[in-house]
Amino acid sequence: MRIWSTQLHEHVGERVVLRGWMLNHRALSKVDFVILRDGRGVCQVVVNDDATRAAVAQWHDETVFEVEGTPKESRQAPGGVELVDPVFREIARSPEPPPVNLRVPEPREQLPYLLDHAAVSLRHPRRRAVFRLGAASLAGMRAVLDADGFVEIQTPKIVASATETGANVFRIDYFGRPGYLAQSPQFYKQMMVGVFERVYEIGPVFRAEPHDTVRHLAEYVSLDVELGFIEDHFDVMRVVRRVVAGMVDGMRERAARELALLDLALPEVPDEIPHVHFRDAQELIERETGERGVVGEPDLAPAHERWLGEWARREHGSDFLFVVGYPMAKRPFYTHPDPDRPEFSNSFDLVYRGLELVTGGQRLHRYEDYVRVLTDAGQDLEPYESYLEAFRFGMPPHGGFAIGWERWLARLVEAQNIRETTLFPRDVNRLRP
Amino acid sequence: MRIWSTQLHEHVGERVVLRGWMLNHRALSKVDFVILRDGRGVCQVVVNDDATRAAVAQWHDETVFEVEGTPKESRQAPGGVELVDPVFREIARSPEPPPVNLRVPEPREQLPYLLDHAAVSLRHPRRRAVFRLGAASLAGMRAVLDADGFVEIQTPKIVASATETGANVFRIDYFGRPGYLAQSPQFYKQMMVGVFERVYEIGPVFRAEPHDTVRHLAEYVSLDVELGFIEDHFDVMRVVRRVVAGMVDGMRERAARELALLDLALPEVPDEIPHVHFRDAQELIERETGERGVVGEPDLAPAHERWLGEWARREHGSDFLFVVGYPMAKRPFYTHPDPDRPEFSNSFDLVYRGLELVTGGQRLHRYEDYVRVLTDAGQDLEPYESYLEAFRFGMPPHGGFAIGWERWLARLVEAQNIRETTLFPRDVNRLRP
Repeated sequence: MRIWSTQLHEHVGERVVLRGWMLNHRALSKVDFVILRDGRGVCQVVVNDDATRAAVAQWHDETVFEVEGTPKESRQAPGGVELVDPVFREIARSPEPPPVNLRVPEPREQLPYLLDHAAVSLRHPRRRAVFRLGAASLAGMRAVLDADGFVEIQTPKIVASATETGANVFRIDYFGRPGYLAQSPQFYKQMMVGVFERVYEIGPVFRAEPHDTVRHLAEYVSLDVELGFIEDHFDVMRVVRRVVAGMVDGMRERAARELALLDLALPEVPDEIPHVHFRDAQELIERETGERGVVGEPDLAPAHERWLGEWARREHGSDFLFVVGYPMAKRPFYTHPDPDRPEFSNSFDLVYRGLELVTGGQRLHRYEDYVRVLTDAGQDLEPYESYLEAFRFGMPPHGGFAIGWERWLARLVEAQNIRETTLFPRDVNRLRP
Repeated sequence: MRIWSTQLHEHVGERVVLRGWMLNHRALSKVDFVILRDGRGVCQVVVNDDATRAAVAQWHDETVFEVEGTPKESRQAPGGVELVDPVFREIARSPEPPPVNLRVPEPREQLPYLLDHAAVSLRHPRRRAVFRLGAASLAGMRAVLDADGFVEIQTPKIVASATETGANVFRIDYFGRPGYLAQSPQFYKQMMVGVFERVYEIGPVFRAEPHDTVRHLAEYVSLDVELGFIEDHFDVMRVVRRVVAGMVDGMRERAARELALLDLALPEVPDEIPHVHFRDAQELIERETGERGVVGEPDLAPAHERWLGEWARREHGSDFLFVVGYPMAKRPFYTHPDPDRPEFSNSFDLVYRGLELVTGGQRLHRYEDYVRVLTDAGQDLEPYESYLEAFRFGMPPHGGFAIGWERWLARLVEAQNIRETTLFPRDVNRLRP
C-alpha cells in the first residue's frame, strides 16, 4: 500500500510503499541515507545493502522513485521515523543535478534565478510550504464567509472600460475593439450585493504597474468581499476581523507542519481590533515623535504606518490596527463620506505590524450620489450605465474590502519580496515562466 | 434582531426584523401582501393597517426596506410562515419600476435584454438560484480534493507565448511587448505536480472564440485538476468521478432550497462510471444505427455523443459515460499515447446525458518524449523551456482534467444557452456589463 511520508508513524513495523523524489542522498562509510520528498513531506530511507547503495549512488537529485520498506522509530530521523530494508524502483530519472540545489535548508540562489527555474525551485520544502500556507488561508477565509451566508461569485476579467482608476490598465485587443483587464472586481461585487447581499470573490486582478518594486506585481490574487445592510464601515471591519482570524485558523488547522517547518508564529487576532481615526493618528504622530507637518497630509507615509504598528503593539498589545476615516481626496469615487465630517471617509486600512494589509470601507449606495460625484469629476455617465443600474433600483448601504493574497502571505512569512510568495510572478520585466 | 427570510419558522410568535427588497406587492380589497426578498429567500408580509397599506402602495418594486413583524404559521404563505403586524422602514427607494419584471415565476424578457440588465435580472429568485448552485458545486469540489490531499494553486493568466493551441488567443500589450491571456493553466498545473503531486485551480481562462454560439464564451471558469503517480488515465477518471460526485453532494447539502425552487433532480453518479473505447463506440454506433463511415473518423460528432448518452442510460443505467482512447491526432501534444495502440491516446471525455462535460487524460512525463513531439511538429523548443524543465528533472506519470464551470452548470439546470449560467458573459459581441 502506498502511504504518504507524513503517515510513516502510523505504520511502524509494517511493510509499506512510498513514492516521491530524491531530495538528498548522503553516502557514509557503512550506510547511505536517501531523503525522499513526496507531495506532503519528507522521509529518510536507510540503505545498508551494498548493491542497493551502488544503484542509488547513480541517481541524481530529483529522480522519481518508489520504495518499499519498513517504518522504524529512530530518534535521529526527521519526524522520528525512518524507512529501513528498502527496495527501490526507479520511475523517472533526472539526467543531471537540478539547476537549483534543493539539499540545503534554504535555497542559496538569488531570487531572479529561483524564479526563472520555478519548476524546480518550488520543490524546495521551504518554498512550497509558503504556498500550502496560502492555500490553507484561502480555505480558512471561505469557511468563515460560507458560514456567514456569503456567496462565492466569479466575475469577468475582461472589461469594457478602464473606469475605476484609469491608470495602469492593460489593454487587450477584444475582437478588434479595445478591452481592458480588470483591476478589481469592485463594480461587479457591488452589483452582486443587490442579488445575494453578501458576496466574495477570489481571483486574479491586473495592474500595469510600471515600477519594479518588492511590493508590486502586474497580476495578483485579490480576496474581495462585499456586504449589504451595514450601519457604516465598522460593520465591514467586523467582517475583516472574522476573515483574518479565519485565515489564521485555516493555517493553524490545515498547515501545522508547514508552520513548524518555517518556524512561524501565527499572529493573535484580538476579538476586537483597535482602531484610530486618520486625523487622530496624524496628531498622535506629531505629538509623540515631534515630527511636524504630518497633520493635513492626505495619506500616511510608510514610516507613519510602521510607527502606528509599534504604537498599537505597545498601547493595545495588538499586531493589528485599523486606521479609519482617510480623507475623501485619496479614496475612489464610490467611497462613502463620513456624514459628520465630509472631508473624511467611512473607510479604513488594516495595518498589520506596521504594514497596510487590507483596504475597505462603506460605499455610496444612492443613485443620485453616484451621478453627482461622477458629474462633479467631469466624467461621462455612459460607461457606468450598467453599474449605476444596480443603485438606481434599490441598493442598501453596503461596503467591503480587498486583501492582496500574495501580500498577506508575504507579511505572514516575513518575505522581503512579494515575488517570494507568488508561484509565477508577473512584473514589468518578468513574463516567464 | 434581524433574521433571514429562511429563518422565519424558527421565530414564530416572536418579534423580529427582516431586511430586503420589495419583490412584489399585491393589494387586495382588505389586505396587502408585500413579498420581501433578502439575500437568501423570500418572505410574505401581510399588511392590514390602512395607513401602512397606503405607504407601501407608493413603493416601486426593488425598494429596499426593513420590516419588523411577527412570524405566523400560514398554509397559504410560501414556506408556511408569513410576517404579520408589520412596521416598515424605507431604506432606499426605487424611483420607478425596474427594467426587468421580477414578479413573474420566470423572467419573460429575451436573454440579451436580461444580460444587458444583469444588475437587476440576476435578482430574480430563479436566476440567482443558478449561481448559488454553482457556488455550492465549487465548495463540493474543494471538499473532495482537499480531503484527498490536493493543494489549491493560483497561476498567472498573462503568459508569454500562445504555445498551447496557437489559435484563438487574446493578445495584450504587456509593457510594450506582446503578451497573451492564458487559454488554460495546463502547463502550470503540470509543473506543480513536481511540487505538490496533486493540485487544483479554479480560475478564469480566455478563448478568443470568434463564433457566437450557445455553447462558447470568450472567458469562462475552468476547474483544473492534475495528479502524479498514476498508472494511466483510469486513475484520473476515478478522481473525476469523486469530484463530480462531490459537486453533486455540494449542491444537495448546500443548496437544497435552490434545487427545490428550480425543481431540479440531481444526477446519480454511479460508484463506477461505465466507459467505452472510442473505437468500440464508433463500431457500436455503426452496428446499432446502420450509419456508415463512422469508424475511422478522428472525433465523435455531437449526434454520436447523444446516441452514446442514450446507450449508456439504456445499457448501464447511467447518465454518465467515459469515452476513452481518442485518436492522438485530435489531442494536444502533451497527451500520452496508448502504449499498446499508439494511434490512440490515454485520454477520455466524460459524457453527461449525451454532452461532453469533462476532458482529460494521461500526459507525457518524459523529457525526451516532449522534445520528440515538439520537434516532430516543427516547433521551436525555446518558448517551452521553463515548462520542459519540470520534465527534465524528475516527473512521475501524471494526468488530469478540466471542467468548464459554466457548462457544467448549464447541463445541470438544462439551460439552452451557456450565457444563462454566467453572471456577466463575454463573447464576440458582448463586453458589457
